Amino acid sequence: MVVLDGPVTDEDPAVELERLRASIDNLDAALVHLLAERFKCTQRVGRLKARSGMPAADPAREAYQIQRLRALAQDAALDPRFAEKVLNLIIDEVIRNHESIKRLGER
Amino acid sequence: MVVLDGPVTDEDPAVELERLRASIDNLDAALVHLLAERFKCTQRVGRLKARSGMPAADPAREAYQIQRLRALAQDAALDPRFAEKVLNLIIDEVIRNHESIKRLGER
Repeated sequence: MVVLDGPVTDEDPAVELERLRASIDNLDAALVHLLAERFKCTQRVGRLKARSGMPAADPAREAYQIQRLRALAQDAALDPRFAEKVLNLIIDEVIRNHESIKRLGER
Repeated sequence: MVVLDGPVTDEDPAVELERLRASIDNLDAALVHLLAERFKCTQRVGRLKARSGMPAADPAREAYQIQRLRALAQDAALDPRFAEKVLNLIIDEVIRNHESIKRLGER
């Protein structure tokens, strides 16, 4: 048996797996609700930008967000490259949303 | 001026944008910490799988997670396709981590 770092318990592996998966499912539900709240904010930003004639994308803001997220990830022992990938996926979706809000306004 | 749905405030658009961005930054910090906690759980799953000889990937579990996340997203008014994209990015990272834990164990 290979023992890596971290405690080895005498719990049945199948039971331990189920316990960990229940925590992962809880965290995922929280993640979905956080993302939903974040998109509520960015939808407001999208409407604000559309009615004020501001461009959908803002490279300076995105650069700031990526730098900040990488630093936060580092502090939280999360791979900064992974955090950046997630943020890029979110930003792409936000820009798509902003552009469709703008198109709706132009119809 | 194009007015879309949602309230129009008399606040300076630049001030309103800053206020919304501060909320987005708070939510992003929470997101990073949730993801860090989630990876702590999946690292434990990875070690458990490695020492019990379970395979890194589990298609049935992934199918369950995707279906559940899509339903949660729908309830939270989040685009289910977007939630699925985020989950796939996370799962890919988790599998990569599980495989490297397994390789570490085999050295």
